Amino acid sequence: MAWKTTESESLLLQAPLRATAGGRSRRPVSGPVPVVTLGLIGMGNVGTAVVRLLQENGDLIEKKTGIRLELRRVAVKHLSKRRGIALPAGVLTDRAEAVVADPSLDLVIELMGGISPARRYVLRAMESGKSVVTANKALLATWGAQLLSAAGRSGVDLACEASVAGTIPILRVLEEGLAANRIERIIGIINGTTNYILTRMAERGESFGAALAEAQRQGLAEADPSLDVSGEDAAHKLAILAALAFGIQVRQKDIFVEGIDALTPEDFAGARSFGYALKLLAMARSEEPVVELRVHPTLIPAAHPLAAIRNEFNAVMVVGDASRETMYVGRGAGPMPTASAVLSDVIACAERRLGRCPVKEHAGPVGPRRRNVFWGNRKVRRMGEVVSRYYLRFPIHDEPGAIGVLSSTLGRHRVSLSDVRASVVDADRATGIVEIVTHGAAEREVAAAVAEIGRASILRAPARLLRIEELRT
Amino acid sequence: MAWKTTESESLLLQAPLRATAGGRSRRPVSGPVPVVTLGLIGMGNVGTAVVRLLQENGDLIEKKTGIRLELRRVAVKHLSKRRGIALPAGVLTDRAEAVVADPSLDLVIELMGGISPARRYVLRAMESGKSVVTANKALLATWGAQLLSAAGRSGVDLACEASVAGTIPILRVLEEGLAANRIERIIGIINGTTNYILTRMAERGESFGAALAEAQRQGLAEADPSLDVSGEDAAHKLAILAALAFGIQVRQKDIFVEGIDALTPEDFAGARSFGYALKLLAMARSEEPVVELRVHPTLIPAAHPLAAIRNEFNAVMVVGDASRETMYVGRGAGPMPTASAVLSDVIACAERRLGRCPVKEHAGPVGPRRRNVFWGNRKVRRMGEVVSRYYLRFPIHDEPGAIGVLSSTLGRHRVSLSDVRASVVDADRATGIVEIVTHGAAEREVAAAVAEIGRASILRAPARLLRIEELRT
Repeated sequence: MAWKTTESESLLLQAPLRATAGGRSRRPVSGPVPVVTLGLIGMGNVGTAVVRLLQENGDLIEKKTGIRLELRRVAVKHLSKRRGIALPAGVLTDRAEAVVADPSLDLVIELMGGISPARRYVLRAMESGKSVVTANKALLATWGAQLLSAAGRSGVDLACEASVAGTIPILRVLEEGLAANRIERIIGIINGTTNYILTRMAERGESFGAALAEAQRQGLAEADPSLDVSGEDAAHKLAILAALAFGIQVRQKDIFVEGIDALTPEDFAGARSFGYALKLLAMARSEEPVVELRVHPTLIPAAHPLAAIRNEFNAVMVVGDASRETMYVGRGAGPMPTASAVLSDVIACAERRLGRCPVKEHAGPVGPRRRNVFWGNRKVRRMGEVVSRYYLRFPIHDEPGAIGVLSSTLGRHRVSLSDVRASVVDADRATGIVEIVTHGAAEREVAAAVAEIGRASILRAPARLLRIEELRT
Repeated sequence: MAWKTTESESLLLQAPLRATAGGRSRRPVSGPVPVVTLGLIGMGNVGTAVVRLLQENGDLIEKKTGIRLELRRVAVKHLSKRRGIALPAGVLTDRAEAVVADPSLDLVIELMGGISPARRYVLRAMESGKSVVTANKALLATWGAQLLSAAGRSGVDLACEASVAGTIPILRVLEEGLAANRIERIIGIINGTTNYILTRMAERGESFGAALAEAQRQGLAEADPSLDVSGEDAAHKLAILAALAFGIQVRQKDIFVEGIDALTPEDFAGARSFGYALKLLAMARSEEPVVELRVHPTLIPAAHPLAAIRNEFNAVMVVGDASRETMYVGRGAGPMPTASAVLSDVIACAERRLGRCPVKEHAGPVGPRRRNVFWGNRKVRRMGEVVSRYYLRFPIHDEPGAIGVLSSTLGRHRVSLSDVRASVVDADRATGIVEIVTHGAAEREVAAAVAEIGRASILRAPARLLRIEELRT
């Protein structure tokens, strides 16, 4: 784990002699290759992909970085399970404690998921001086602050690129690529399952139930899909993004969350007829002195690049005060794309551990990156105060004056109308639909107006309210 | 520049006492804030934006990173020029030598452009122990290897995020975010000027000349636009991207380059009629044991996200073996977006200089990141051997048998046709147009067939050949 031999078991320096490609001669390479030793907890789909990617690209990573990553211990639940991947004898164990306590390891990758006992293992690994790489967004969204300060106390890195937006290196973008910016907005499609469902509903006119069933058949939705379709998973990820972007500590209850399970084919048809696409967006916006944090189905201009993000792909748009609009696209899930993000963290942590002290006789690992974790301190705007445009759909009894009631009620609540379209559903039964796109209005006012209209006995079914984000194309 | 005071002038540690926001009390912050001192060479549009961004966001950057960036010296050509930006007395100089030689500076930002004398200044700065941040793609494309090894010898960083794709942190993505991947392909729209021109030609049917004139009026094209419209600028950037992605040293002559100045409204109409958009793409593809490197106008499926990249925006698609398709979008030029990239490098270099040695009595800067620069060694495929699909347009004398000559000549060269459309231009004069989309064929064969057709006296004007990239949407 460093550039000279010490008593640490982790300093397994490789021999400087290597065969050349042709195999005819051997010559020394420029010096010993430092080894960083890894432990892994959890070998499900992503864990298996991490092991495979290390096996396939370990030599390439060594060529690029000059560092050998060596997987020493892997903790699994069931030792006997077949995984289609070969590991040297002695690597597998069913005791995660043995991995986090192993003094020969430099770094632990936590991929078991869930909060307990993952939290305990992560803490123990860091306390014993190991950097930790995790993809566990639920753990980070709930215990992130505590884990980060524990990492600081122990002088180790805690990295979690794979926890948000799969393969997209979005945390690095926020922390490094856009580091000089005051981040103004983040708008993300950060749940692949729901984006797949919405793509099918939009392109094939399927119902939510049918599209969900297909997602489950494709392995893109869990048997219990509630964490995804409720928007909660996206909210976990938004908490991480907003924390990095604004330097704030986000509690889940600060995020307004609305899922996609109530969406109908009529919502997609309505959106399309006004020139919009319908996506589940996670949004964070800074408007000093407050921030807005919300996850909900949203109408966006059909020509905006985010509207073209299909199926299980994720995309995050980040607006900085200097960079202006930027966007990052990639697969939000899947074993290998996620393993790519996990190993990018492993490589970064390994490189930091191998940073060199300039004093030759003390060459050794340097500390983790020093970053202030929560440098901002902001209030979250209540949803009622959020201003946006709205798409409203009112199934009405087609009586004289119904449209008058709608527009006058909205007007009394200072909701002004940008576009109104009335259509007859059934002339015999005198039923119709009125669709309205409003100008910018406060959620509180729109909700009050819609509630008042609901009491006016002109509706034959509940009104529909969807928010619009007027992104520039 | 470090965590304890030494004799170095660069260790200007700030006082630990700061006023709180309310100004009523003073309390110590957690410790002294380390200062990294900067010199800047060149204060054109981007240089001015860097100074402004440092002034506007310097406090924010300190909050995020715990590092104070202090601009000490700025070399300009004309001291008397008004720049609308205030600098402390003594900062401005018209002697770049004084900046690169100043022992109190930790880092030099080179934004003067051009190869000479920029190269000399960069080398001098590094030799005297300063890290260098530059946006100078021409310098990097021609002298990159030498500069990188000079940086290695001096133990400093040389960073150049702003040299490719403006504000998009694409070099960081290749070096870090996708570090665990074997990169298979890079497909980029990396010249904002030409993308703006092509957007106008596509959306408004303008001629190349008219669109170029408008780009010049908008300040998006130089008075002499040849570096951009010839594709050379994109080739410079592609050389940098390919070097990082594949670990190879790229010579400009290895890149096939074709510009956009010969494109006509008919090309856009033809592309559209077959379902394609027309973009100037810079492409690098790895196919062991060779790589392909090319810049040329290219037809891509109209529904692909790259087709939606409009005006001066840039986008880079990167395909890794684990990540699969990823895409990065943002402004490719403009003072503030570029300054965002420049300062992201400054922050990264500053953080590396401040990495800590664990031996307390020797706390001090650690070395730069160790990366192997050229770890790959590959041949470049000759353009004649490149296989792709083609769009061909033949303005013909509408004589019996003309289409027969076309298809049989192409067939003899093993170019098979996917779609053929013939249309009459002027029935009286018996003139027509035949448009063909081919299946995959080697460039050499297609070019030979087109040349042979040119000699067959069935054409009333030269044939048009454009390459197609069948990106999946």
